[in-house]
Amino acid sequence: MNDRTEAVKAYLLDLQDRICAALEVEDGGARFVEDAWTRPGGGGGRTRVIENGALIEKGGVNFSHVHGDSLPPSASAHRPELAGRSFEALGVSLVIHPHNPYVPTSHANVRFFIAEKDGEEPVWWFGGGFDLTPYYGAEEDCVHWHRVARDACAPFGAEVYPRYKEWCDRYFHIKHRNEPRGVGGLFFDDLNQWDFDTSFAFMRAVGDAYLQAYLPIVQRRKATPFGERERQFQLLRRGRYVEYNLVYDRGTLFGLQSGGRTESILMSLPPQVAWGYDKRPEPGSPEARLTEYFLQDRDWLAAAPA
Amino acid sequence: MNDRTEAVKAYLLDLQDRICAALEVEDGGARFVEDAWTRPGGGGGRTRVIENGALIEKGGVNFSHVHGDSLPPSASAHRPELAGRSFEALGVSLVIHPHNPYVPTSHANVRFFIAEKDGEEPVWWFGGGFDLTPYYGAEEDCVHWHRVARDACAPFGAEVYPRYKEWCDRYFHIKHRNEPRGVGGLFFDDLNQWDFDTSFAFMRAVGDAYLQAYLPIVQRRKATPFGERERQFQLLRRGRYVEYNLVYDRGTLFGLQSGGRTESILMSLPPQVAWGYDKRPEPGSPEARLTEYFLQDRDWLAAAPA
Repeated sequence: MNDRTEAVKAYLLDLQDRICAALEVEDGGARFVEDAWTRPGGGGGRTRVIENGALIEKGGVNFSHVHGDSLPPSASAHRPELAGRSFEALGVSLVIHPHNPYVPTSHANVRFFIAEKDGEEPVWWFGGGFDLTPYYGAEEDCVHWHRVARDACAPFGAEVYPRYKEWCDRYFHIKHRNEPRGVGGLFFDDLNQWDFDTSFAFMRAVGDAYLQAYLPIVQRRKATPFGERERQFQLLRRGRYVEYNLVYDRGTLFGLQSGGRTESILMSLPPQVAWGYDKRPEPGSPEARLTEYFLQDRDWLAAAPA
Repeated sequence: MNDRTEAVKAYLLDLQDRICAALEVEDGGARFVEDAWTRPGGGGGRTRVIENGALIEKGGVNFSHVHGDSLPPSASAHRPELAGRSFEALGVSLVIHPHNPYVPTSHANVRFFIAEKDGEEPVWWFGGGFDLTPYYGAEEDCVHWHRVARDACAPFGAEVYPRYKEWCDRYFHIKHRNEPRGVGGLFFDDLNQWDFDTSFAFMRAVGDAYLQAYLPIVQRRKATPFGERERQFQLLRRGRYVEYNLVYDRGTLFGLQSGGRTESILMSLPPQVAWGYDKRPEPGSPEARLTEYFLQDRDWLAAAPA
């Protein structure tokens, strides 16, 4: 492991610690349980899961660091020149499914990839982002979430937030429903056009911004009373989350198809889910407003003061 | 529509009627609700759904008949010579999710495909099968299910049942769990090595056998008392069903990716589902026996008298 990988790894392990600690405080009930695992092909990870908390019904914050002697062809389909190189992939990936339907589900991920070959320059890139999936939308939550995203991107250029906001909308799109998974955020991949230090700093800015983006929303919504109606709607909408993750999410599919650790990959799935036939919310209801207003790939900051 | 398509269509519509009628009698509570739909590209279907019955928590029995002027390349990837032909595809597809965890989920499908071109012989084939997914396995149910399958195949040759039984095991395999979806049954596709009349007769034999295979199992198990423990296990196992259908099932993925009718395709998903982190049944428990004994691609008829 070289200095770069070492530095990224140290950051990621610390990020996982900080996020778990903050979420435990916010939850006030359950604790994360850690499951350290090793991968037969090389590397391993530490999976941390929280279940049946006061706030979090199910959540996972995963660190993984896998490496191998030869990059599998499927991992390098878009870069055939990398096939056969040794590689390391490090990342933190998390999904939080709160119990209260007024608290949105959140997802974040930061990752680093490096492919090496004797006598040649290593090829590396960063990826990551965070996105929010509300059940009952709230304008101020969306604006706050995107403002934190924009502020994290700002030091790296004015074009960065719009570019990765749009990529997020494009990536988290449920094609067969013709609707986005949520209200978006940031998504970036293959980031290597800046030098290493700048790229790494950007990944850290995104990783560090997640708690700033999510916690205020959680705090505002977690005491909102709800009943069976809101719960049922949440369960149905969680079905969309499952549909997206299992049908489209590249990370999930690549992980499952390449013999990744199934329980760590599918940790992202919600704890309780429902599917009904052709369930549509009543026109004019708060449930209808979710798809009609919130799930529309909006520019949430268009009308918001800086 | 030519005589062959007409004959297949008449059979399929009648099969849908017979299956729905028998399941309604068995349920004794809810009725199927019909939703007739048309496809912008040509054709349509009648989707029938039953929800919250006394026996069936959610079930769907779909008839569809779609046609088009030009076979999409994705539909003919394994037969490039058919690209551009006009086509018709007809089928009945069903999934029944009972409420009681002692009653297995069942799935059946029969389908006919024909691709035509002026001045050339039409190319046609049949496909179909049925398979069973228990939560709490019962030897006699598995033997009965497979005996009905074998008897349906017998008039068509002694090699037919073993061939399609094995294809079913291969097809309904959840690779990332390294386990089968259920205890199998029959699966066949691309059937055109017999003449049309024989092939059609075989499809009818399979379609007609479904109720004979399923109803006795339902009748034996539906009054078995169960509690929260069995229900929770059922919900977790239903998660495997979702994983299979959304990650691997070719019909589901092709339907979703080709702009099929989402609500009819995803009718197969269970009504209530749960995912937990790394949940494993206690060794020696009935829940452990499901994977250890029943989900093992067994030859259920090896020890059974004819």
